[in-house]
Amino acid sequence: MSKPLIVDVHTHVYPPAYMAMLRSRKTVPYVHDPSDNTPPRLIILSSDDDPSIPLDQRGRPVDSSYSDIRVKLSFMKKHGINCSVISLANPWLDFLPSADAPGWAEKINDDIEATCAKVNADADPNGVKALSEKYTLFAFGALPLSASDPAVIVNEIKRLATLPHIRGVIMGTGGLGAGLDDPRLDPIWGGSGRDEAATGRYGHVLPLALGFPLETTIAVTRMLLSGVFDRFSGLQVLLAHSGGTLPFLAGRIESCILHERKFAANGGEVQGPRRSIWDVLQTNIYLDSVVYSAAGLKAAAAAGSADRLMFGTDHPFFPPLDDVDGEWPSVTTNYQAIDDFQGENKDGQEAILGGNAARILNLK
Amino acid sequence: MSKPLIVDVHTHVYPPAYMAMLRSRKTVPYVHDPSDNTPPRLIILSSDDDPSIPLDQRGRPVDSSYSDIRVKLSFMKKHGINCSVISLANPWLDFLPSADAPGWAEKINDDIEATCAKVNADADPNGVKALSEKYTLFAFGALPLSASDPAVIVNEIKRLATLPHIRGVIMGTGGLGAGLDDPRLDPIWGGSGRDEAATGRYGHVLPLALGFPLETTIAVTRMLLSGVFDRFSGLQVLLAHSGGTLPFLAGRIESCILHERKFAANGGEVQGPRRSIWDVLQTNIYLDSVVYSAAGLKAAAAAGSADRLMFGTDHPFFPPLDDVDGEWPSVTTNYQAIDDFQGENKDGQEAILGGNAARILNLK
Repeated sequence: MSKPLIVDVHTHVYPPAYMAMLRSRKTVPYVHDPSDNTPPRLIILSSDDDPSIPLDQRGRPVDSSYSDIRVKLSFMKKHGINCSVISLANPWLDFLPSADAPGWAEKINDDIEATCAKVNADADPNGVKALSEKYTLFAFGALPLSASDPAVIVNEIKRLATLPHIRGVIMGTGGLGAGLDDPRLDPIWGGSGRDEAATGRYGHVLPLALGFPLETTIAVTRMLLSGVFDRFSGLQVLLAHSGGTLPFLAGRIESCILHERKFAANGGEVQGPRRSIWDVLQTNIYLDSVVYSAAGLKAAAAAGSADRLMFGTDHPFFPPLDDVDGEWPSVTTNYQAIDDFQGENKDGQEAILGGNAARILNLK
Repeated sequence: MSKPLIVDVHTHVYPPAYMAMLRSRKTVPYVHDPSDNTPPRLIILSSDDDPSIPLDQRGRPVDSSYSDIRVKLSFMKKHGINCSVISLANPWLDFLPSADAPGWAEKINDDIEATCAKVNADADPNGVKALSEKYTLFAFGALPLSASDPAVIVNEIKRLATLPHIRGVIMGTGGLGAGLDDPRLDPIWGGSGRDEAATGRYGHVLPLALGFPLETTIAVTRMLLSGVFDRFSGLQVLLAHSGGTLPFLAGRIESCILHERKFAANGGEVQGPRRSIWDVLQTNIYLDSVVYSAAGLKAAAAAGSADRLMFGTDHPFFPPLDDVDGEWPSVTTNYQAIDDFQGENKDGQEAILGGNAARILNLK
């Protein structure tokens, strides 16, 4: 009996070309190499770039797990993952001067594509073969969203579609700087031509635990309200962190739309979304399973459907605080949640763990 | 066979004393009676108090459904609700000058208590008897949170505990102005002595659909992180809107706590919460069922438990836009969600519809 296919659709890299670009910068975001040979520091937030903090200690460390694909492969082996769909992490390319963005996007996407090709060909990228099992990589590409001409962004999408290991693109919630309901994004949503364009006090707990998922929820709700899913009914979006909180709030969002005079069929000032949120959740939206509980997965499956849910780890974020050599609780919690959610239904478990991703993303 | 008990634990009033107080004010929040005898206008937000808008059109109308208990009883009859636990709505008493707050709190709470007593005694409050069925009212009291001395707030909690129809208190997420993790709230959390103290562009869609639930989530997460539930392990809180998004995000919140160096057992700067979020959800937190979907209810029940879920309507908010005499879709959607969630399990349905509330709030 063969092992089930386990696919990680939410797993990040800062490839060498991206690190090199960040090293060349002196303003946020930038990378600084400490003088004591400890891992490079990534300074993302203006608040982290505090002159009263020694440069060697600013920001947070980004160790080899972010940039060395061998570390990713070790992580996959440790957690039984056969296939990863890697993607650039926050802050992506959104901050680049518009003239520089297209060149870096191309270079970084080519870097990611080459990594996938090298690993999949099983050529020995400095020791991968030593891992003794076969692993497969695919990727979501990054976009030069700060380019001054949307046509440049569309061109990169079209180019990505020709690369053999790219299965979609990754975007933050900012879009071109005005959210994902920005009409200027219409060429991006429609651009691929194949309907899969967009595939202090408590430490970091509040921004990480609540901030990210709430941003996702706000961004996709604004897309819905602005009619993006009416204008681009074939748009396919994979939402991070099981949709932020969208599966839980979908009913309330739909109810609020129905009770908003501004969107009323008779006498409303503006056209509201013409399709229900449930239709969009079951047609346009896929969700990863990075929600750390059976409670979350139950809502995600009920709001969309279980065959649109795909396993993910968020590697290399959330490593263990202490036992760095052991299994990562951030990963085992998500495995356990799928187990708790599906119970005896092994087919259902395998679909979420890898079958859905293989089918939806055409991983072969 | 008797009809099942249906209890609405999330249903609001602006009692006459509250409306009188708002009518006496000239700055937000205030009530203005238009000269054409249309319903009074409530101006809550500074942005609504725009001098370029005629006073008669500022804010939003608050019709008799907010202040006339006969309208509430008609609504209950229309939707098969036998018992309502009424509560003051936003903006509560939080804005009052500190000297005025205790007096108004007492007056308004007495007003609400008297309304419950009158209806329950089946005396005829101008026509209630004409409704021809027996209805019961209980209430959550309001607190003078702007009082300068927390002892005054605690005194009102103790007084409320002596009123026969009061079953807890209602609070917004602001607390004393610094959130619900404010240490100055400790006397309030511990104060009752009986461990049940605290029982533009798209119109209003974004603030109503996302803003309220996100505020709730942030507020209760801050309570957790600050150790409120460690210090007051018997605190009982009923969270509005099925916890905002807490049931969906609980796993992520717990994971972020475990991965926060600041809270680490070894070498963390501060003491993190000592109890898991799951323990708190199953011991300290109750959830109403105002989430408009089976998906939300599934997460709410899985994160806490189905016997801690209680039906609610949010009346008189979200009336139908057009067919004002028909059933309210905002209510029928929540009935349908319970039906979809529990399916053939009639006992489970009846528990959420009324049995849980009757037991938990001692409604007799």
